[in-house]
Amino acid sequence: MSNARSPQSGDGYEVIRWRDGALSILDQTRLPWRTEYVALADVDVACEAIRTLRVRGAPAIGIAAAYALAQEAARVAAEPLDVARSAIEAAVRALASTRPTAVNLRWALDRVQTAIEGAHDGLDRARRAIETALEIHREQVAADAAMATLGSALLGPERGVVITHCNTGPLATGGGGTALGVIIEAHRRGMVESVLVDETRPRLQGALLTSWELQRHGVPHHVIADGAAASLIAPRKVVAAFVGADRIAANGDTANKIGTFALALACEYHDVPFYVVAPLSTVDFTTPNGPAIVIEDRAEDELVAFEGARLAAPGARALNPAFDVTPASLITAIVTEAAVLRHPYGPALGGALTSRASGPHAR
Amino acid sequence: MSNARSPQSGDGYEVIRWRDGALSILDQTRLPWRTEYVALADVDVACEAIRTLRVRGAPAIGIAAAYALAQEAARVAAEPLDVARSAIEAAVRALASTRPTAVNLRWALDRVQTAIEGAHDGLDRARRAIETALEIHREQVAADAAMATLGSALLGPERGVVITHCNTGPLATGGGGTALGVIIEAHRRGMVESVLVDETRPRLQGALLTSWELQRHGVPHHVIADGAAASLIAPRKVVAAFVGADRIAANGDTANKIGTFALALACEYHDVPFYVVAPLSTVDFTTPNGPAIVIEDRAEDELVAFEGARLAAPGARALNPAFDVTPASLITAIVTEAAVLRHPYGPALGGALTSRASGPHAR
Repeated sequence: MSNARSPQSGDGYEVIRWRDGALSILDQTRLPWRTEYVALADVDVACEAIRTLRVRGAPAIGIAAAYALAQEAARVAAEPLDVARSAIEAAVRALASTRPTAVNLRWALDRVQTAIEGAHDGLDRARRAIETALEIHREQVAADAAMATLGSALLGPERGVVITHCNTGPLATGGGGTALGVIIEAHRRGMVESVLVDETRPRLQGALLTSWELQRHGVPHHVIADGAAASLIAPRKVVAAFVGADRIAANGDTANKIGTFALALACEYHDVPFYVVAPLSTVDFTTPNGPAIVIEDRAEDELVAFEGARLAAPGARALNPAFDVTPASLITAIVTEAAVLRHPYGPALGGALTSRASGPHAR
Repeated sequence: MSNARSPQSGDGYEVIRWRDGALSILDQTRLPWRTEYVALADVDVACEAIRTLRVRGAPAIGIAAAYALAQEAARVAAEPLDVARSAIEAAVRALASTRPTAVNLRWALDRVQTAIEGAHDGLDRARRAIETALEIHREQVAADAAMATLGSALLGPERGVVITHCNTGPLATGGGGTALGVIIEAHRRGMVESVLVDETRPRLQGALLTSWELQRHGVPHHVIADGAAASLIAPRKVVAAFVGADRIAANGDTANKIGTFALALACEYHDVPFYVVAPLSTVDFTTPNGPAIVIEDRAEDELVAFEGARLAAPGARALNPAFDVTPASLITAIVTEAAVLRHPYGPALGGALTSRASGPHAR
């Protein structure tokens, strides 16, 4: 087990790395300036990395948390059962509380926990945990490839301009990416002329990370202010928007990076299809609809300061919700690894999850 | 004439200052860090100040340009007529070309030119030019006061939360402000509980200037990312949006700072009134509708760099339109100094301009 390796993700860069039983990640707070890996040597370091967005993107967070939990299970493999169990439970609680909105995080931790339930000793527990984390990661790579195929088929044969928000590339999933994975694949097939990239305030994941990834993949693009999207859709002849999701409620309402809802409204006004691209692990059937989704409020400083520069008047207070909810009514389709889902999303999501449970990714 | 003084504007701060025949402005690129006045000693310096946004806001630009032209008329007062005339014409061309979207700029310059047409000598020309610039400035102060009264009456008696975009306070007009003037007045009357301030990328006029002005006027507020407006309108119970305008076409389509259109779409979705507040000098009857408005594209660096910090991946290209056009159909009312105008805007704007031509501000 210990020499099992995590699967490859981005084109020439690895996002989450598992080698010789140890977890490290490409530090996304250093990008695009430096390509620097940091070891997430224990649960505390892993939690800090997730909280401070060194690793980010709902699927990537889930995978990193699964590996961190597996690493902890290995660390306590020789401990008495009660000690090991309480260490693992503490790790689950700590990891689950780092980001309240991403549902994959909870889902991945649950899956590792379920896998180790019947283990006959500490080593077996560690082996199962590691195998499950690797499986989650491999499944994400496969799911991303399936979404890229299904999503790129939504575009017409003529090359067009597409628009996206935040970062949903390999950096966000540890695989090929969700929405940006679709765009990269569609460009490879000659269907994307260029991409409008919302800079995505406050953390600028679009300007910093998506632009970096598109450059690595040779995809022409322009960074724009989030507020410019509405007025560029018509003159730039945008043919589709592709965004990711942090949590999809049972009715299709979708939580994603703040600013997504505004982009959806702009697409609706201009009659441009608005596609959400997300693996089924992002769907939370225990959340009936958007208003029930917990939205993470992040520190004011994320908005009013950047790399030492102050971006607001001294004394200014700020509100910094990390996510917003796009109502299902504004979403043209949800692209999952199983199928492209359409209205009404309640039955469509339920059906996709049922077929998945008997499909190749079932467990 | 030479000891005529410009009227007061903001609460304790002057935005455009005319003293002893000389023009200076509060340098808005130094705010909110420093309150620093710079002399606009000649036309070149004035053009540079307008282009680099040391003085900004459609009405303020018009006033500053009128003073700069008057200063030039005084400088060439003793020159032969042909020399003086060509200097003044060159000044008009240079000043008019600094910002293509703001219509007040062209309007103010035209008005000074018209005023000096029948002058009997160089001194008379200078006197008329200065008197006209002062008049334009005084009229803006009066117009802002009238808009504040008319606009604040649109709010209900209960204190509510309002939202605004960019900066439209005293800094933007040299008077009491347009949209922000309404908000400050409504707060004074107890009708505004607090203000959501779009930070307004790329230049952050909301976070830097509007927050600074609201602090000076004691109005509670929160700065938000532009993309957060759509999702905060409902939970924060926003009762109205007030924005300014850089140019209003004959049909009511309104050019304003990039991001305004997105805010209008968010208000429409939530059934929240969206008010444009602008003096009639902002209306351009020679522009039939929004698509005919020239939108200024500004340098990419305004978006991808800030105070020495790089805000995008190295090599990233950007699109940086300075303004967008909000279709008249999304505007609940246009608040002018003459009246609150409603759909259909074509006849309403025409009527307001006709009554203005015979009203107290007529010339």
